[in-house]
Amino acid sequence: MEKNEIKKLVAYTAADTLIKSGMKVGLGSGSTAIEVVRRIAQLKSEQKLQNLMVVPTSLQTKLECLTLGIPITTLADPALKAQLDLTIDGADEIDPQYRLIKGHGGALLSEKITAYASVHFAVVADFSKIVDKLGIKFAVPVEVVPEAQLTVSRQLESLGAKVNLLMATNFAGPVYTEHGNLLLHAKFKSIEHPDALEKSLSAIPGVVESGLFCRQVNHIFVGTADGKVDHIQT
Amino acid sequence: MEKNEIKKLVAYTAADTLIKSGMKVGLGSGSTAIEVVRRIAQLKSEQKLQNLMVVPTSLQTKLECLTLGIPITTLADPALKAQLDLTIDGADEIDPQYRLIKGHGGALLSEKITAYASVHFAVVADFSKIVDKLGIKFAVPVEVVPEAQLTVSRQLESLGAKVNLLMATNFAGPVYTEHGNLLLHAKFKSIEHPDALEKSLSAIPGVVESGLFCRQVNHIFVGTADGKVDHIQT
Repeated sequence: MEKNEIKKLVAYTAADTLIKSGMKVGLGSGSTAIEVVRRIAQLKSEQKLQNLMVVPTSLQTKLECLTLGIPITTLADPALKAQLDLTIDGADEIDPQYRLIKGHGGALLSEKITAYASVHFAVVADFSKIVDKLGIKFAVPVEVVPEAQLTVSRQLESLGAKVNLLMATNFAGPVYTEHGNLLLHAKFKSIEHPDALEKSLSAIPGVVESGLFCRQVNHIFVGTADGKVDHIQT
Repeated sequence: MEKNEIKKLVAYTAADTLIKSGMKVGLGSGSTAIEVVRRIAQLKSEQKLQNLMVVPTSLQTKLECLTLGIPITTLADPALKAQLDLTIDGADEIDPQYRLIKGHGGALLSEKITAYASVHFAVVADFSKIVDKLGIKFAVPVEVVPEAQLTVSRQLESLGAKVNLLMATNFAGPVYTEHGNLLLHAKFKSIEHPDALEKSLSAIPGVVESGLFCRQVNHIFVGTADGKVDHIQT
């Protein structure tokens, strides 16, 4: 089964299983999460889903919602009471305890605000994202305010990381996030204690957010190589 | 002795005692810290200080430096190697273990990045800033990305704070920081464990920085009611 087909199957299964009419739902970014948006649009057009309140976590997801006729709101909407029922999002790496590296799409800040403001958090992914240990293959993206680029780099290095500033490939200079910040890629040899590292990264002055997500994942939907979807409920 | 005179005396004493030619120095914001800038300008004009590298922590301090002919740089300057020798700044509250509430001037993010990137950190204040326990009189300012205003407020409330969004008084809407963020004032009954609270605040998604400063303070210069300056070296 082709990888894009698997992503679609995973996203559709997650949406069909978890999203109910009237829910307050956060929608992640990236290729699998965007298929969740498309499935919601289908279910809405078939009148199978009604009265959703939807919070997108990136410009990409927001535009996909608007293009497909899904009304959106933001976490600043008082009607949400600062809490969502559910967020569905993808991941770059998932370890055996369902801790995640996210944010290689660049939207980690809104993704984390949204995921951590949700009662339930569901992750959609294909099998290639499952790893024995976080950080062996992927760097941890760290969003920093521009003036702290060098001071944060120095502190990441003291935690054992090799650090690169994410550069743009189609214009001169670094990549800027939707919030006007820079992204450092902190490559550790491996990450032994993701929960502790998440807190250590947050505590560095100038770090806005990191791509380590150690909050409880309530549901994981993983596409297998033979075209099935495993649904793990924690 | 008048309060402004005390501030000046404290700032001058700190500058005269700690700043040497060739140093890399961070300069804080607020009425006492700005007197340090003025003293540096004097010492420079008298050829008593040379080859300083100065990093201001706010637009106010930057403009004061430029107006008085003090060349400035930023922490993004590779020549600083991501570290300063010394930062001198004011504080809103100082407890007996020299932990601070800062940021009621609104510049807490740059102030914290700078203070925590310095080998030595010195605080200048008048006696009215000394308290038995932090947070009884002052709220802790918390800089948040705008979309997380309500979700962060909710989490601050769950930590026991009453939360107010800082509003502008001379235009409609909230105050924005130099980094385009909002400021929440989190008023606790009192703060029993400032170090733990500083970490807890950092860990909330959407919090950019808080006004709790629990790094080691190496020097405190306090102006007394009778016009003296106490210099405490920790």
